[in-house]
This record gives sequence, C-alpha cells and structure tokens, in this order.
Amino acid sequence: MSFDRLIEKIRLTGNPTVAGLDPKLDFIPKYILDASFAEYGETPDGAAEALFRFNAGLIDALYDIVPAVKPQCAYYEMYGWQGVRALKRTVDYAKQKGMFVITDGKRNDIGTTMEAYSTAHLGTVAIGSETVAAFGADALTVNGYLGTDGIAPLLGVCKEQDKGIFVLVKTSNPSSGELQDRKLDDGRSVYETMGEKCEKWGEDTVGKYGYSAVGAVVGATYPEQLNLLRQAMPHTFFLVPGYGAQGGSAADVRGAFDENSLGAVINSSRAIMCAYKKQGRDEKEYAAAARAEAIRMRDEINSYIK
Amino acid sequence: MSFDRLIEKIRLTGNPTVAGLDPKLDFIPKYILDASFAEYGETPDGAAEALFRFNAGLIDALYDIVPAVKPQCAYYEMYGWQGVRALKRTVDYAKQKGMFVITDGKRNDIGTTMEAYSTAHLGTVAIGSETVAAFGADALTVNGYLGTDGIAPLLGVCKEQDKGIFVLVKTSNPSSGELQDRKLDDGRSVYETMGEKCEKWGEDTVGKYGYSAVGAVVGATYPEQLNLLRQAMPHTFFLVPGYGAQGGSAADVRGAFDENSLGAVINSSRAIMCAYKKQGRDEKEYAAAARAEAIRMRDEINSYIK
Repeated sequence: MSFDRLIEKIRLTGNPTVAGLDPKLDFIPKYILDASFAEYGETPDGAAEALFRFNAGLIDALYDIVPAVKPQCAYYEMYGWQGVRALKRTVDYAKQKGMFVITDGKRNDIGTTMEAYSTAHLGTVAIGSETVAAFGADALTVNGYLGTDGIAPLLGVCKEQDKGIFVLVKTSNPSSGELQDRKLDDGRSVYETMGEKCEKWGEDTVGKYGYSAVGAVVGATYPEQLNLLRQAMPHTFFLVPGYGAQGGSAADVRGAFDENSLGAVINSSRAIMCAYKKQGRDEKEYAAAARAEAIRMRDEINSYIK
Repeated sequence: MSFDRLIEKIRLTGNPTVAGLDPKLDFIPKYILDASFAEYGETPDGAAEALFRFNAGLIDALYDIVPAVKPQCAYYEMYGWQGVRALKRTVDYAKQKGMFVITDGKRNDIGTTMEAYSTAHLGTVAIGSETVAAFGADALTVNGYLGTDGIAPLLGVCKEQDKGIFVLVKTSNPSSGELQDRKLDDGRSVYETMGEKCEKWGEDTVGKYGYSAVGAVVGATYPEQLNLLRQAMPHTFFLVPGYGAQGGSAADVRGAFDENSLGAVINSSRAIMCAYKKQGRDEKEYAAAARAEAIRMRDEINSYIK
C-alpha cells in the first residue's frame, strides 16, 4: 500500500517531514527570476521556468534528507497552463530523485469526474493506443464533503498502482472550526465523523505498518484534536500542516505519532522555501539555507517523538 | 456584481441553463480524434487538441441560445498540462463568443493559497511588469469545508473584477447526505448551515437582481431540499447539477427559481455533449444535435417556471 512506501522513505531518512513546494514569485531569488525572464520574457513561460528552477534547486538540496515533497497546485495554476507544466516537471524531477510526491490539490467531485481527477494526479490515461501519466504523483489531498461518492473513485488506483490519498479532516486554519468542530446530533463533531469515514474508506488497504492508503489532513495548530484523532484513527496516516509559519510547534505535533514514532508526516512550506530570507543569507544560497532549516526541523521534531 | 451579468445573459437568451463541457475522449466524435491525432500524435497534445476542437464546435452551436458554459477541470487535468491548456483555450473561446464561463474546479484552501486559486481562475497575476489572466473565468465552484478562511480570499476579486463563486451546499450525488444531511446539535443540517454561510459571505455583494456574488451548488436530485434552500437563501444564486443523466427532471428544478423565474442556472453536461449518440445522428452532426438538445431542455425547463 502506498503509505508503506512513504513510511519506508521516512525510516530511511530518519525524517518524518515533507517540504511544501508553494513557489510564489515573491519567494524566488531574483537571480532565478532574472535568468528565466531573460530567456522567456515576463510571461507565464518565464514565470513557470522560474518556478521549476527554484523547485529543482530545493529538491537537489533536500532529496537525501527529506522523504517527500508536497507541491500545492494553486501556486502553479496561478501562472496558467505553463505553471501547471512546471508542476508536472516538478513531480517528475522529485520522483527521479527518489522523493515521495504528495500533490496538494484538495480535489473533490463525484463518480466519473472524480475518476478523472484520480487518473490525472495518480493514475494513467489511455490516449489512442498510448498510456500516459498526466501528473503521476504518489498521493493526492482530497476533500470529503461529497461523501463516499467522492472518495470511492480513488480507491481503485490506490490499490492497483500503490498510491494514497489524504482526506481533509481537521484543517489548520483559524476558521476550520466553523463547520468541522460543530457537533452532530450524536454528540460527535464533524471532524470526528470525517475521521471515522477515513478509517472505513481505508479498511481494505491497510499495509504492513498498519496504515491504510486513506490518510487524513490534521492541522498542527489544534494539538488536542490531533491527539484525539490519533487515538480514534489507528490505521490512518496523517499529513500535518500548520507547523512553523501557522504557529504549530514540534511539541504540538508530537501527538500525531504512534508509539513507534510513525503515523504522520509534518509539512513545512514557507520556512523551508524562504529560509534564506530568515537566515539573512545571500539569495544564491537559498538551497543551502533550505537544507539547514530542513535539518533543524527534522532534529527538533525527532527530539519530541523518539 | 457578477451574477448580474449571468442573469442578464439568461434574460437575453430566455434560457436558464448552462452547458457542461466535460470532454472525455469517449464522447468526442472519431473524426475529430483522428484529425487531432494525425496532427499531434496519440499524445497529450493530440488529446488536448481534440478536446478544444470538440468544445469549439459545441460553443459555436450554442453561444446564441445558451448563456453559459461550465468546463469541469478534472477532464482537462486528466490530459496533463496540455489538457489544462485546452481548458484555457476553451474559456477564452467561450468568452470571445459572449458566453459566461463557470470553471467547475471545486477548489478549496486557505489564506494565500486560496488567493492563488482566486488569482488563477478569476483574477490576474503580476509577472514582472506584466499582468496576465491565467484562466480568466467569470465564476468558480468552491468547497467550503474549511470555513471563512477558504472563502474570504475570493471575495475581493468578486467585488473588484465582477466575478462570482458557487459554494457546494447540497450536492446531487447519492452519498451527499452522509455528511451534508447530518443534523447539527442545533437541529439544522450541515447543508442548511453551509447555506446560511453563503448568505452571510455574500451579504456585501448583492446586485441589482437581489443576488450576491456568492452562489451555491444545490443538486436537482433533491427537489425537497432545493425548495427549502431557495426559501432560506433569498440572495444566493443557484447552480443546479443533476438534471438529466443523474435523474433530476424539469419538475424537480422548478423550486430552484424565484417568483420572477430567476435565481438559478440548470446544468446539463452529458445530455448535450453526447446528444448525437442519443439521437442516433452521424457524429459529424454532434454540434447540431447538441443545439437541438439544448433547445429541448430550455423549452422543457421554461414550461415549468414561466
């Protein structure tokens, strides 16, 4: 099952974290922008080239110490289809370097449409007599508001092609409670109910480390809920956003892990991408700064969970 | 406000419907596929060319009688960035023909990431000294599971650039009730609660026909809920999927409309795209068949709401 591969990468690197690749142009060193614009103009092609070069530098600096990357679709779509081409190049490059790729698209729909998203991001599509992987990530984030009709279409590709999904359960943002914390008439919250569904949706895909192919997104910014959900969802691997820039600490994410120090991967995006700014280093050292921050984060989190 | 433009197009055409553009290769006439593959090979470029040619034929046949199109992102992403380029070409072509374009992406995220989606699909992005519309639709479907943090980032572009959003409230699929129909501890359902939020999110953007820039997706397959929500959400314009292939009838969607026969746009995708198959016509007549079906649907729905 898919999260076995992720878990093995985490064990190999001794690092339960994922680097978010959310490349706004503001984050990208000027020398990369200048070179990309010089070659392709101040155009979507130029922007997309800068996104990819920035990401490739990060991947080169991280692939031996960080198990996974999580490109966020929005930052690629913002630069049009050319940006989406940079997403594909990023996925390919990270996989070539042996990283596990989680595409953060929070996709959701039903039936054949959800199958199309599954095909797009995880599977392969037939074009005449050819078969092509449109984006070919290892896992995809999804939104379960539409119920089983929105999740079932993903389970086939998870089983057959060893892929995984992360369903939004309790998100890291301040207003996540507006709906997710509301109690249903049985006294359980919406997020607990979504968590139960994840356990159910994943039950036929539990791998050798005890986790299914249906993971959950649970924010670092709500450590109490994170603890409760870890207990309530023993077969569900967690993707934990909200560490760092959003305020979640290493102590806060401890509860995401099981007694074997497994069960979760903690995301950091801006703190890694923009480490060179925070460290006051020359922009040409952005990749080395990112590596230093990734090591710091790894060691800090490990100090709480080992 | 955005839905004023849609409402004016609906009045002009006398047609409260939207044609869904969900172009699977299976739906596309062989002569279009053959020509596209001959030119670009059995590749994502060939597939994407076929998607666009198919859509362009539909748009040519519909633009004077149907006010809007709704391309569904999944079917474009399935063919990679080349497919996403076909989405952009489709949006541009439909707008050039005067149609209102609703991109059906069900996007969702928070803060700067949701701003990036807003920028991508509705707004414009700065690239160096240039400003570019990445996709440039008139409206976008979104998922509100993350609360206000996932919706507020869209409201600026709705106000400033006269755009709109449709928030998933009660979806048309069989399992939509798993979460959406559950009662909260105040006795109201999740979908009613989401509906209330839509009214709240849209309150500063009510246009001259009484509808805000924050619309809602409410399925044709649950006519009772559709009626209740129409009463409870007087300022929220509805996008209604589920007519036709999913089982919703013209009688079922009547409740989506207000006393002025406004307030909703009814979607049909497959019945229009594949009308040539159902009508047993030669595939080269797919566009004429689509037009005949769009006229039939218009007249059927109008017979219930006028």
